[in-house]
Amino acid sequence: MSALAASLGDPAGIGPELLCEAWVRREAEGLPPFFVVGGARVLAEAAARRGLDVPIAAIASPAEAESAFDRALPVVGDIDGDYTPGQPDPDGARLALESLEQATVLALRREATGIVTAPVSKALLADIGFAFPGQTEYLAASCRLAEHDAVMMLASPQLRTVPITIHVPLAAVSGMLTEELIVSRARIAAEGLRRDFGIAKPRLAIAALNPHAGEKGNFGHEERDIILPAIATLLASGIDASGPHPADALFTAHARSAYDVALCMYHDQALIPLKALDFDNGVNMTLGLPIVRTSPDHGTAFAIAGRRQADPGATIAAIRMAGEAAANRARA
Amino acid sequence: MSALAASLGDPAGIGPELLCEAWVRREAEGLPPFFVVGGARVLAEAAARRGLDVPIAAIASPAEAESAFDRALPVVGDIDGDYTPGQPDPDGARLALESLEQATVLALRREATGIVTAPVSKALLADIGFAFPGQTEYLAASCRLAEHDAVMMLASPQLRTVPITIHVPLAAVSGMLTEELIVSRARIAAEGLRRDFGIAKPRLAIAALNPHAGEKGNFGHEERDIILPAIATLLASGIDASGPHPADALFTAHARSAYDVALCMYHDQALIPLKALDFDNGVNMTLGLPIVRTSPDHGTAFAIAGRRQADPGATIAAIRMAGEAAANRARA
Repeated sequence: MSALAASLGDPAGIGPELLCEAWVRREAEGLPPFFVVGGARVLAEAAARRGLDVPIAAIASPAEAESAFDRALPVVGDIDGDYTPGQPDPDGARLALESLEQATVLALRREATGIVTAPVSKALLADIGFAFPGQTEYLAASCRLAEHDAVMMLASPQLRTVPITIHVPLAAVSGMLTEELIVSRARIAAEGLRRDFGIAKPRLAIAALNPHAGEKGNFGHEERDIILPAIATLLASGIDASGPHPADALFTAHARSAYDVALCMYHDQALIPLKALDFDNGVNMTLGLPIVRTSPDHGTAFAIAGRRQADPGATIAAIRMAGEAAANRARA
Repeated sequence: MSALAASLGDPAGIGPELLCEAWVRREAEGLPPFFVVGGARVLAEAAARRGLDVPIAAIASPAEAESAFDRALPVVGDIDGDYTPGQPDPDGARLALESLEQATVLALRREATGIVTAPVSKALLADIGFAFPGQTEYLAASCRLAEHDAVMMLASPQLRTVPITIHVPLAAVSGMLTEELIVSRARIAAEGLRRDFGIAKPRLAIAALNPHAGEKGNFGHEERDIILPAIATLLASGIDASGPHPADALFTAHARSAYDVALCMYHDQALIPLKALDFDNGVNMTLGLPIVRTSPDHGTAFAIAGRRQADPGATIAAIRMAGEAAANRARA
């Protein structure tokens, strides 16, 4: 076994064309072998629409992916559908979900070294009965883990961030922060950087919640009451954690050189610097799972699907990162 | 009258040496003429410590600054003190305050085209009885304006941002946001961009408060209840306002090309992208005042004062921006 499984993503979005583009650039980008789970016709049409020459190799099992990868884009399984760029529908959502489910099973069975998930429409998935807020929560459940054991990390060439709270109102963030939550996320992040990135002693920078880190309590006490105790607990357990750092100064080039990952208290604190510094190459990686999982940090982008506009940077980066993580795990 | 007044800043900080460095680079950087209010001895010693050749020209009035500027750094007034880099004390804070006060008066009297304020220590100023949270609030009061009429804008070559709330706990932000506050700040920002930057119809991007702009109310209602009504009011009064924009996507290179200033709901939303994109050239400009006022967006940096390490980029950018704003006002 030595290839990554890529899920197709919504066939009306930019996922299929970007998997084709990544395959075309496989040598130039030094990408590890990957295969797509289903969607052979979708991929062929997406490639043609993008003006790419992408032969499709229908393979019987993932074991054949590595040898097929040089000359064609390997596809496992016969689930398929119509390529309807920009026109999402329930059939497409069902195809995307089946591809995700089968890719997950292949990774859990170790028939794939990890999975790269192309973008899906959460709204359409909800319409067809998908019971999870997103792919990350689905993967946690598929791995028989509690939702909070799967930790989202955003990574670009310049920066890695982990949001402690995610899809909640900003006004609710302070009430949700606890020492335990920060410690739990930080431990999973540290272990993930060790296991998947080969960083022996990861340096964690813990962001403050309030401006100027609360300026000695003048603008809030969460730093003293929650974040500092969490840092003390992490340090006591041998994790290199620093902070709480005023968030506005944490993402300068100089500051970034001093840590391997920034733990951020809320969604936009983690995402603003990542996207400002490098919008086109952001990868969403799920830490804490028994399987390697990455995803390009963008959505289906229905509006530009099939128009040769979508940037393949994040998909290429996600494939590369999954390959490196799988190699690091195999070495361990 | 045709020169800017620069306040000295705390004599134990990096302000004096950076004013000297800016003068040395005046031709290469195309800087407008400026003079410093007081601190002739401090400046001479700061220049020597930095290895700079900066002749000081003691001038009797600001009217002499422009002709003196070519050959020397002009200094108006005889207030002065010791240069004690890295060792702040109350005498230094008093000197910094007197320089600020005199510079402000010169600008209000139109003897200076505007002021550039070097960094002061808020803590030390408070110790000697300064009754304002910072220089911005002092300037508003000196101009006989209410504090909320002075609006802080942060500007770098890539980005301009205006925080709607500033030095408050993050948990208090939602409760402080009102339609009136957003509209008031936005109007002052729009007028400032017209008056000081010559932008006839400024494009204002209004950031959302919650992740994904609340995702249709799933993560918060401030977008619907406060921000959208504010945008409607602004549009009705002829101001080009858009949003609420999800904040994580608002600071990409592509997004930035579509607006002249981003109105941000809280301190770190405005400061994280600005400092991540360009830490060394950030300028703090006060909009809404009858006088032009800029400041480098950094502090006294006592720890590196006198060590030839401080980057002059922000001071140079602040002087240049003040000069351009003064020229735009003179043309109006």
